[in-house]
Amino acid sequence: MADLEETLIIIDADAESARHLKEHLDSQGFYVEIFSTLAEFTPKLEDLSPDLVIGDLPTGELSTVARLVAPMRPRPPLIVMSQDVSSGHILSALRAGAAGFVAKPMIDTIDIDHSISRLMERVRLSRENQQYRLELEQANKSLKAGLEELQADHRAGRQIQMKMLPEHNLEFSNITFDHCIKPSLYLSGDFFDYFPVSDTQVAFYFADVSGHGASSAFVTVLLKNLTNRLQRNLRRHSSDDVLYPDRFLARVNTEILETDMGKHLTMFAGIIDTESRTLTYSVGAHFPMPILSVNGHSRYLEGKGPPVGLFDDPKFPLYKEHLAPGFSLVVCSDGLLEVINAKSLAEKEECLLETVQSASHTIASLEKAFRLDWVTELPDDIAIVSILESAV
Amino acid sequence: MADLEETLIIIDADAESARHLKEHLDSQGFYVEIFSTLAEFTPKLEDLSPDLVIGDLPTGELSTVARLVAPMRPRPPLIVMSQDVSSGHILSALRAGAAGFVAKPMIDTIDIDHSISRLMERVRLSRENQQYRLELEQANKSLKAGLEELQADHRAGRQIQMKMLPEHNLEFSNITFDHCIKPSLYLSGDFFDYFPVSDTQVAFYFADVSGHGASSAFVTVLLKNLTNRLQRNLRRHSSDDVLYPDRFLARVNTEILETDMGKHLTMFAGIIDTESRTLTYSVGAHFPMPILSVNGHSRYLEGKGPPVGLFDDPKFPLYKEHLAPGFSLVVCSDGLLEVINAKSLAEKEECLLETVQSASHTIASLEKAFRLDWVTELPDDIAIVSILESAV
Repeated sequence: MADLEETLIIIDADAESARHLKEHLDSQGFYVEIFSTLAEFTPKLEDLSPDLVIGDLPTGELSTVARLVAPMRPRPPLIVMSQDVSSGHILSALRAGAAGFVAKPMIDTIDIDHSISRLMERVRLSRENQQYRLELEQANKSLKAGLEELQADHRAGRQIQMKMLPEHNLEFSNITFDHCIKPSLYLSGDFFDYFPVSDTQVAFYFADVSGHGASSAFVTVLLKNLTNRLQRNLRRHSSDDVLYPDRFLARVNTEILETDMGKHLTMFAGIIDTESRTLTYSVGAHFPMPILSVNGHSRYLEGKGPPVGLFDDPKFPLYKEHLAPGFSLVVCSDGLLEVINAKSLAEKEECLLETVQSASHTIASLEKAFRLDWVTELPDDIAIVSILESAV
Repeated sequence: MADLEETLIIIDADAESARHLKEHLDSQGFYVEIFSTLAEFTPKLEDLSPDLVIGDLPTGELSTVARLVAPMRPRPPLIVMSQDVSSGHILSALRAGAAGFVAKPMIDTIDIDHSISRLMERVRLSRENQQYRLELEQANKSLKAGLEELQADHRAGRQIQMKMLPEHNLEFSNITFDHCIKPSLYLSGDFFDYFPVSDTQVAFYFADVSGHGASSAFVTVLLKNLTNRLQRNLRRHSSDDVLYPDRFLARVNTEILETDMGKHLTMFAGIIDTESRTLTYSVGAHFPMPILSVNGHSRYLEGKGPPVGLFDDPKFPLYKEHLAPGFSLVVCSDGLLEVINAKSLAEKEECLLETVQSASHTIASLEKAFRLDWVTELPDDIAIVSILESAV
């Protein structure tokens, strides 16, 4: 049964024969229009957009029709009707572009029905393909637009996050702080900050919020805000929590629990005192531990502590470490372990230590040593903070 | 010139004729294989995946070939070669599925070249379409995956945001607070909270952060955190800023500026005192103003003030309003104006007032009055807070 939308054209000077054929095709559900000459049909071609053309035409006009319909998609096939059934005429009709040939007068409609059904099958398949393609193109366009909208949103959020990070190459006495951050999505769950808290003391912390993306980025905003407040409190002498890494972690713990976001984080918080040459620090389940390097020898810092924002009253022990001249400290998120090619976690840790030991400890050389420029699809956020004392 | 990948099949018992034709087609760059019978060809069909088949075959076998290749995409056309050039034979070849017919012996190659070029054009177009379709499908798949990843991220962020909102239908004395929120993306720049600050006082605020999405959502996290702190300070008697809407807005202003996010917001902050039956409030450029309804009459509250988080030392005037028994207060974000169908902003405001006046002021009836259930593509976040005193 034909699709009601399908348009068949008959071009035949013999009005009686054309009318008979039209009646037959009408009854099959086709929309049929008759033209007695090609000249009549030509101007109507585009409006009618036929699916198939049946014509009793001389070979020259047949070629013209074939040329006219060639750009149409689907291209309508041509069926030639003719009283001349000599093989020469049939072959020249085929050469001219005919896809079917029916002898006139039509004794019955078997031949034309067979030709139409064979050719319409191709037309329908082609139309279905075209429809499917259009749908795909449309879906593509709308997916692309949706993706771009969300990406723009993430980029805006990321800009704000980047603004909250400290400046690059900040110097305190002879110590230079620098960092890099590579979020796996646009928004990062890795966060850190460093700032002087007295003439001889610099505070810093490194946080890795569970998960990544928008929800983890929320927590980093809170961290930045809390740190600002604690610094302000210190200036106002209303609280000196920021001078004590263990109390600092406890404060973060309280605020995260109170905001009730269902998020926790791992942290490392430290104070470097350039006068006493000590590093005082607390660990909130941070992993891997920071790497301390002196005179070309590197090792992980000792220490442990519970994650932050998970328990009601966690205890964060305080650790102290002597800092030899020309020391360096490299703090990174566990995302870095994921791009290190080793089998076990222990091997990855070992490889991380070796790579840090063999590199100089500027961010540029660490990025190069870990080939971070080459990493594109990051499984997790990666952040590195480098704390480097220049030789005096 | 033919594509080197294109495979042409010759089925012809006459080895000499087949070899001649193959030589000719080879020279045109086609890959050509010869079979002397259909039985030889059939088992090789799938491996060869021909683009076109040329055969000197009886009509029955021709039908078989046509049937065999019918499911292939693109479907290879068939060209019949035959010494029998009677019109009956040609027509039956066409009926059997032939798309071209060439007389044997071939005096020259004009006929076969013409047939091949006409049919290969169709095959190439079909193959291109198929290739394009595959590429579209692939692109679609990868866009969908990318979009789903970001959407999942946004949903996680949104869950956290929703967790930070107050509970529905909170009651203080005879006053019920309720709300709805419809973000245009997944993360909202609209935020509000309400909480008791004494036995007779309830504080509430409504904020609309510039823009929407992740970056605006960051600010809402800060707001929630600040509000928690101010409530805590009140309990500890260290600050009572939360009791004074003007001081509350000034606090928010300071914190937003200090966090240096480059974001500002509009706010409305109020305190309802059930003993003195007053509403004390300050406006941080909030628009449209809240609608106060008493005894079936509704009007916008008076007052103005600068946006929050934009200026260093803004002044937020304090306003007072008597609350008659059975009052209601409806606070909404300007996103609601965007779904109201009116020409000017003034007309939209008028329409908003009329709609609120004619509805009862529960969230359910407000959502119905504004047809928010029917709105799908939101141009901006929409949030409504309803504050409703039940008749005593």
